[in-house]
Amino acid sequence: MARPLQLHEDRLFPADAATRAVAQRLYREVAELPIISPHGHTDPQWFAGNQPFTNATELLLAPDHYLYRMLYSQGVDLAALGVASRSGSSAADPRAAWRMFAERFHLFRGTPSVLWLNYVFAKVFELKVALAADTADHYFNVIGEQLAQDAFRPRRLFERFNIEVLATTESPIDTLDAHRAIASSGWRGRVITAYRPDPVIDAEHEAFTASLERFGELTNEDVLSWRGYLQAHRKRRAVFAKAGATSTDHGHPTAATADLSSREVERLFARITSGNFSQADAELFRAAMLVEMARMSLDDGLVMQLHPGAFRNHNRWLFTHYGRDKGADVPQRTEYVHALRPLLDRFGNERALTLILFTLDETAYSRELAPLAGHYPILKLGPAWWFHDSPEGMRRFREQTTETAGFYNTVGFNDDTRAFLSIPARHDLARRVDCSFLARLVVEHRIEEGEAAEIAVDLAYRLPKQAYKL
Amino acid sequence: MARPLQLHEDRLFPADAATRAVAQRLYREVAELPIISPHGHTDPQWFAGNQPFTNATELLLAPDHYLYRMLYSQGVDLAALGVASRSGSSAADPRAAWRMFAERFHLFRGTPSVLWLNYVFAKVFELKVALAADTADHYFNVIGEQLAQDAFRPRRLFERFNIEVLATTESPIDTLDAHRAIASSGWRGRVITAYRPDPVIDAEHEAFTASLERFGELTNEDVLSWRGYLQAHRKRRAVFAKAGATSTDHGHPTAATADLSSREVERLFARITSGNFSQADAELFRAAMLVEMARMSLDDGLVMQLHPGAFRNHNRWLFTHYGRDKGADVPQRTEYVHALRPLLDRFGNERALTLILFTLDETAYSRELAPLAGHYPILKLGPAWWFHDSPEGMRRFREQTTETAGFYNTVGFNDDTRAFLSIPARHDLARRVDCSFLARLVVEHRIEEGEAAEIAVDLAYRLPKQAYKL
Amino acid sequence: MARPLQLHEDRLFPADAATRAVAQRLYREVAELPIISPHGHTDPQWFAGNQPFTNATELLLAPDHYLYRMLYSQGVDLAALGVASRSGSSAADPRAAWRMFAERFHLFRGTPSVLWLNYVFAKVFELKVALAADTADHYFNVIGEQLAQDAFRPRRLFERFNIEVLATTESPIDTLDAHRAIASSGWRGRVITAYRPDPVIDAEHEAFTASLERFGELTNEDVLSWRGYLQAHRKRRAVFAKAGATSTDHGHPTAATADLSSREVERLFARITSGNFSQADAELFRAAMLVEMARMSLDDGLVMQLHPGAFRNHNRWLFTHYGRDKGADVPQRTEYVHALRPLLDRFGNERALTLILFTLDETAYSRELAPLAGHYPILKLGPAWWFHDSPEGMRRFREQTTETAGFYNTVGFNDDTRAFLSIPARHDLARRVDCSFLARLVVEHRIEEGEAAEIAVDLAYRLPKQAYKL
Repeated sequence: MARPLQLHEDRLFPADAATRAVAQRLYREVAELPIISPHGHTDPQWFAGNQPFTNATELLLAPDHYLYRMLYSQGVDLAALGVASRSGSSAADPRAAWRMFAERFHLFRGTPSVLWLNYVFAKVFELKVALAADTADHYFNVIGEQLAQDAFRPRRLFERFNIEVLATTESPIDTLDAHRAIASSGWRGRVITAYRPDPVIDAEHEAFTASLERFGELTNEDVLSWRGYLQAHRKRRAVFAKAGATSTDHGHPTAATADLSSREVERLFARITSGNFSQADAELFRAAMLVEMARMSLDDGLVMQLHPGAFRNHNRWLFTHYGRDKGADVPQRTEYVHALRPLLDRFGNERALTLILFTLDETAYSRELAPLAGHYPILKLGPAWWFHDSPEGMRRFREQTTETAGFYNTVGFNDDTRAFLSIPARHDLARRVDCSFLARLVVEHRIEEGEAAEIAVDLAYRLPKQAYKL
Repeated sequence: MARPLQLHEDRLFPADAATRAVAQRLYREVAELPIISPHGHTDPQWFAGNQPFTNATELLLAPDHYLYRMLYSQGVDLAALGVASRSGSSAADPRAAWRMFAERFHLFRGTPSVLWLNYVFAKVFELKVALAADTADHYFNVIGEQLAQDAFRPRRLFERFNIEVLATTESPIDTLDAHRAIASSGWRGRVITAYRPDPVIDAEHEAFTASLERFGELTNEDVLSWRGYLQAHRKRRAVFAKAGATSTDHGHPTAATADLSSREVERLFARITSGNFSQADAELFRAAMLVEMARMSLDDGLVMQLHPGAFRNHNRWLFTHYGRDKGADVPQRTEYVHALRPLLDRFGNERALTLILFTLDETAYSRELAPLAGHYPILKLGPAWWFHDSPEGMRRFREQTTETAGFYNTVGFNDDTRAFLSIPARHDLARRVDCSFLARLVVEHRIEEGEAAEIAVDLAYRLPKQAYKL
Repeated sequence: MARPLQLHEDRLFPADAATRAVAQRLYREVAELPIISPHGHTDPQWFAGNQPFTNATELLLAPDHYLYRMLYSQGVDLAALGVASRSGSSAADPRAAWRMFAERFHLFRGTPSVLWLNYVFAKVFELKVALAADTADHYFNVIGEQLAQDAFRPRRLFERFNIEVLATTESPIDTLDAHRAIASSGWRGRVITAYRPDPVIDAEHEAFTASLERFGELTNEDVLSWRGYLQAHRKRRAVFAKAGATSTDHGHPTAATADLSSREVERLFARITSGNFSQADAELFRAAMLVEMARMSLDDGLVMQLHPGAFRNHNRWLFTHYGRDKGADVPQRTEYVHALRPLLDRFGNERALTLILFTLDETAYSRELAPLAGHYPILKLGPAWWFHDSPEGMRRFREQTTETAGFYNTVGFNDDTRAFLSIPARHDLARRVDCSFLARLVVEHRIEEGEAAEIAVDLAYRLPKQAYKL
């Protein structure tokens, strides 16, 4: 009774025949382009060690917060899905966890998770039937068997996926051993890092003090002095750049920036490092550090990314028992016009700086982000992000930013994922949605098809390479 | 010269032929399903007394705030439309009022009111010509004649409309006599109540003190003591549950919740009942009572509904002369992520509690509501509400919530109306719009048609029954 | 190798064949209607002096902030584009500036600027090839040659554009000489003014004190006394009305209004005129003056327009070096429900007053503006404005306002431009987008085609004439 697994070649294209025909032609121009993945969260150790992945649950279910947050919302315990808690790894049988998921796969109807997973199932594992309660074991078996084969080891998949460059994200206190191991391995895959200094900038992070200590050890700087702290950043940024990094990334609760006098910032830093600081101090310090990071970017050329707006660990019980990153982050209203002004006052007109802005608050697209990016030389817009990394989300992004910021103040697609196997699925989805948007402009005679074909390639390939200096 | 009244069988379906064909097939699956109306404001006395309705103006125009707010915006006095004021009922001749409306029916072009009314005109009254100045009298006559017939009495219409269950909404100080009369009448129509405690929770309501007094009388509790007050709620909730209620409903200006210590809440309650309280006290008390209501729901199983965000009685002159609910309520920005956190901290992970969220602020759909409902076990999303209970509003709701919350964290349609005759029209409209959305997903190969057919039935019938425990 | 310049007759119409056919038919009803331009920023001196325009750069590029903001965002200096700075006019060679623009014309793909410009190129200058690097000189030559001809002088273009009435916008301290010259010239073109008192109301404007002084001279009133100040407004409004003005216009950072007692406002005015005032004072004074302006409008019949929400001169460096209006204004969140209440409390129910509301914050459409305009007799909604004056922006405006406010609480299209040559392009675009929206309602059987044809004419012609009393 299993339904066939269908991956229609026209998926995600508009229904209208004329528009679909244009979308098909545009898509043909980009379908086979190499993948540029300038921002994401895969584990570099996969490519350093090149050990086989284990099973469907550990590879596809337990690490995917899109999946377990939905299942949790419908009453399923995280432990039952193989998700580790603060007390340790889950005792759940991976096969049983996979069955629970399979029985509830209908909950994901209409979400991008279905589209990503079905792509992985069909293209990577060549499954022919749809996932459901009665095919759960078949899936678990087939996937497990294939993962044991050499062709499914991380490096072979990387090559098969036609990835030209893949950026991971590391903390300043990461030693980058994995990246060094990749570099010295002789393997030709290009896996680079990105500098994500939140753990040593966000004083409200539970591991801030420990991170700061390690930051000092790694750099041999007195990071409790403002000068030493800045110098430590400069040193780690240089090490990251040497390990291929072309960008920094900043995940703040708001987009606040602050351009403080050196006296003000030194006093603030003293309060922060004393541990005796207010929430407002922590916020101001994050804000001030964005200006410092911009200043360093002008020196070392690293592209800045700002990912604001997540209320992290919203579910107190879950945070207590399971820790961070368990699907309980929720977007909040995010303001950019006033928040970014101190940084823009200082560096907004620099030709040598790039600041790529993301948002979880779609109301900012047409009201704030497109007008800002359509004016300031340093600003570019990152793609639809996280909850909005979806067909409707991407469509809204283009519809609400293009008329003011154009295509060329955007940077193409980021997959932003830790789900390595889904990377081709995500890029394919983004290409299809962008081609669909372009096709509508073509059939409405707002751009010509030749222009659209150029733009399609720009969005899929040229713009991310250029914006991220890859 | 009268134009024919047209109710096209493909109304509201997308123009694209392939998509429309799918929408037609999906709609066929749901068109004849019984109506589940779990939230609304019809008068239970209609079904208790089963007296005939009087005339077109008193039935369709004077009670419909969607209609008279638009006419008012274009310079028509409410009194001329038969709307009662604080000084008493309108002196307007119902036929003259109906003519004023008919002459201005073009003002409603593009609004859902036209779609609802034309459905009522065509399906209930079998009118063949469109409403306009020159058909006003014909309409008034035909509708009046039909209303005088037994087939148009409330119970017969209820049966003809194929309503499986209809919930009304009552204050805790309502004696539920009408519901008891229905229950003891032998009539088999299922009309249930819902517990709407705003009049005894909202200290800023002009009748708060009087309501509180009556609350004490009805429950024989000392409602000026915190324990007595809570006990009175428990008693009335039990009475409501016995009269069929499966839910409570809370219409607050914001979504604020507060989890106070018993000392804090007792002090607050003392200020509230003393009459000597600030706006902030009133807001905090509403917030605290949501947590108390959640606690009681865990005991008695009533599903909670939260309808926040209306600025009530915005037009001061109109409020002075005509009172509440005269079309002068206006939505305002509504925040959920911080506002709901105290309640979610306390009860967010309970499997036995359901809190259904509504909004008048569509910006919360993708930013706050879908991410919250896609994570917390207790949360579900109510349908597009009030000003957004419309084809475009429903489409935006699905487009902006589905990718993050899925379909199964939503609860199907609520008509939320006091316009009894429009109930089938509203459900029909919702079914058509949902089928159109699903059809687009099908033709874009994002779901399969078999899945879409299941979802269509879920949205029209299964989900409301399940979410509201009907 | 030049591509042909294509202006497809079906541009902007939906792709679906059935919908497009309806849109074509609706458009035929409005394509040739005269242009009503009730709000804009053209220079009346053009029509007074009727001197020829000079060249492509000075006419089309250097004054168009849509164009140079985008080019600036991509690293082009404003001076290189012929934009004047505080130190004087640009030294750039106009032909070289035009080339820079032409080489970067692809940056505007997907923006309305392309649509407007291509219309001007094709319809006004009858160019046959697309603008690009290799056609830059051809364009510069052809446009320059044509501008030198009598047929391209301002008055002849005005007539050729079929403009029935064109409103400019002037400060109270403008002497209206140009308008008087037009009136006494015998030319039959109707160019009227509008009263824009911001320079003498916004105490934070850098020229406020100087403007106030000139205001006193022109009116022979003691404008430092509250009575004299109000009397000066009355006098200038009367002069403006005599010069054809039917409206006032108010460009405030927020929509705040305040209904102060005469004592409060006199004290506030004393602080304002003393120069010793806070930001909050300046904001309160703007707010209070909106109520005063409404009071005067009740006397003299001028229609009020409120354009709130721009953060002006966001780029500090650019403001320092280039001054205002250099493409560095950015929208910000704008609240209406609370902000407008003082004015609405005072005058909201007046039948003789009209207040037309605009927004740069699209989130207000469905949440605040449509509900307000769908209730208050004085309120009407202006069209999609500035950054939202675009195909997608206009579509969102109709989709998000119509179901609550209808079509008849809107006022048709405003071009709001200083780019005189683009006026027909902008009205044509608006007509096509409105016809496309209406066509969708027709094919979805939500309105009938006969109604849609009426609405199309209302939106293109009747409503602006009526709302602006033209």
